[in-house]
Amino acid sequence: MTGTEVSGAAGATFPAIVPPDVQARRAAEARQHQLTKPPGSLGRLEDLACWVAACQGLCPPRGLERARVVVFAGDHGIARTGVSAFPPDVTAQMVRNFQAGGAAVNAIADSVGAGVRVVDIAVDDPVDPADGDPADGDHTADPAARIPASVRGRKVRRSSGRIDREDALTAEETVAAVAAGRAVADEEVDSGADLLIAGDMGIGNTTPATAIVAVLTGMEPVVAVGRGTGIDDEAWMRKTAAVRDAMFRARHYVGDPLALLRTAGGADLAAMAGFLAQAAVRRTPVILDGLISTAAALTAVQLAPGCADWWVAGHRSAEPAHTAALERLRAEPLLEFGMRLGEGTGALTALPLVRAAVATLTNMATFADAGVSGGSDADETAG
Amino acid sequence: MTGTEVSGAAGATFPAIVPPDVQARRAAEARQHQLTKPPGSLGRLEDLACWVAACQGLCPPRGLERARVVVFAGDHGIARTGVSAFPPDVTAQMVRNFQAGGAAVNAIADSVGAGVRVVDIAVDDPVDPADGDPADGDHTADPAARIPASVRGRKVRRSSGRIDREDALTAEETVAAVAAGRAVADEEVDSGADLLIAGDMGIGNTTPATAIVAVLTGMEPVVAVGRGTGIDDEAWMRKTAAVRDAMFRARHYVGDPLALLRTAGGADLAAMAGFLAQAAVRRTPVILDGLISTAAALTAVQLAPGCADWWVAGHRSAEPAHTAALERLRAEPLLEFGMRLGEGTGALTALPLVRAAVATLTNMATFADAGVSGGSDADETAG
Repeated sequence: MTGTEVSGAAGATFPAIVPPDVQARRAAEARQHQLTKPPGSLGRLEDLACWVAACQGLCPPRGLERARVVVFAGDHGIARTGVSAFPPDVTAQMVRNFQAGGAAVNAIADSVGAGVRVVDIAVDDPVDPADGDPADGDHTADPAARIPASVRGRKVRRSSGRIDREDALTAEETVAAVAAGRAVADEEVDSGADLLIAGDMGIGNTTPATAIVAVLTGMEPVVAVGRGTGIDDEAWMRKTAAVRDAMFRARHYVGDPLALLRTAGGADLAAMAGFLAQAAVRRTPVILDGLISTAAALTAVQLAPGCADWWVAGHRSAEPAHTAALERLRAEPLLEFGMRLGEGTGALTALPLVRAAVATLTNMATFADAGVSGGSDADETAG
Repeated sequence: MTGTEVSGAAGATFPAIVPPDVQARRAAEARQHQLTKPPGSLGRLEDLACWVAACQGLCPPRGLERARVVVFAGDHGIARTGVSAFPPDVTAQMVRNFQAGGAAVNAIADSVGAGVRVVDIAVDDPVDPADGDPADGDHTADPAARIPASVRGRKVRRSSGRIDREDALTAEETVAAVAAGRAVADEEVDSGADLLIAGDMGIGNTTPATAIVAVLTGMEPVVAVGRGTGIDDEAWMRKTAAVRDAMFRARHYVGDPLALLRTAGGADLAAMAGFLAQAAVRRTPVILDGLISTAAALTAVQLAPGCADWWVAGHRSAEPAHTAALERLRAEPLLEFGMRLGEGTGALTALPLVRAAVATLTNMATFADAGVSGGSDADETAG
């Protein structure tokens, strides 16, 4: 194991989550009534702006100039059973695509102005002894095609286990993965990030994510399983059987998030759970992405109750289990675009909406400043 | 009348609209299948990007770096009857707020990166003879409080008429207003604008907009009338009566957009109709805003059939008539934020979504470029 060392379950034990600041929220709500617009007329933008003010404990809030998406990459043994439209090799290939700036997450991050970091949590790619990492005997792969050492510092293992037949992780690996996600969140906040997004990359990762959501929300597999990256009917049947078998193995762990992540999840999901919970510990707002991020979020709220107050849902994906997870979180997504790519792309697409909300609360003139009739008395006196 | 001179109805006679380019759309759709993502996995972003490519006749499309919102400001006689939560003076006050950069449209435009222009089409504000504009005898107002001459070059009249009892405009003024909107669109496109938004400012303007939508879609006034800027029950009853009376006066003009704008609309709505239609003439994509913009759009599609192919709906506002107008246009809004401010704010908020879409189509790597397995054969060969 590389990355943060933990002993026992300490890496997955969170302090009590402090809610976003009530005083700042009230000040923001009061300010909304003073700005040169009818009260409430910016709709959800007003709620979003007040939420950011509460997260920052500051009214008017600062702009969100240092948003960061962290893509947690990991393979899954279940992908070898044909539950995806893509071969497992694509996970590592896509990590290199991220590093080269060619993926959707890069294009959207550049468009909206956000930083991208890739973290190899459990990609099925050999580690290179020349980098000082433990060798695992696989020296056959082309070194040029390997994942760069710069993204491997938090790696927990090579691929998570095949969850229809075996645990995804050991208990120690589960804690290590949560701790790795926490450490990444700490690094990002310490480096100045003011908003965090957890993205995902891993062929087959909708299978464990769907199993986790279905266990926690009581969904039937046939209802929960979607088309993922675009599978045909036969792959859908294999995937549904895998989700069913994983749910059977994990069925007793509705109240034990670490055991659920261990039996039916994976290192990437555990790391994302740690990352999302730690963002709340660090009082940093989060935009949730799609199914993978939201499945991890469901376990994070068990690990660190109250952390969901620090999140907003970026979008509703095309995956049925995502809607169930959002409902469980009582989260109303900002966008309904039928996206199903992951990588953090849905959350990044929603980022400018949150920024626009902040801009109105922070930069608009008040009725008094602008010499405009109306303001807080308008409802009573005009008409 | 200032601004573009017209004779007869020539200012409101449009050439045939050329649809967005089919070849560019097909090339964009084909490229979507080559990019490093499962086909269709970016959902609506893929459709948006293909639409922009078709509008530009170019694949991959250029980024939309020169988006412009034009706020058409105008007063309405009906506002004096108490159909709004704000007094009519606020229209002119808000024009000055726009010029000072203090309004929501300014804050959001700055946040998303778009230019703002304000055009006084029919504000009830005296014109100043010192600017060379025709005097109208009102020299009592504080000159410092007046609307700056820079935004008055397209002014058609001082306030549109009270539509429950009289026509909003003369036939000549209606054509002049449409021509003014066209001229503004031409100026913007000639100055390099690559995406246009029509915003609105005018106390009472939801009343004519609602009347127009209700006439064209067969809605009952009690169903169509919303709360506008936030009116109480008594103001709502006055507004509903005004919409009913305006609809009665305009009921024969379902197939005559100029007569409808003249009897139940206003100079601002007519100018926005001209602007939206001319954007299509100039092959420039448009994001529609809320009720006012979309009511004008319904008349624009009558003036220039086919122009709606050049538009996308930015958001669904809280106004009931807006949903009816969107349905008539078969437009699926990008956002559902319950916004009801106008000014172009909803469309501007949606602008980064269109830009993100373009960024993926233009800047992502292909499977071949990135050395990622999959691509157009992935559906058949993987599993």
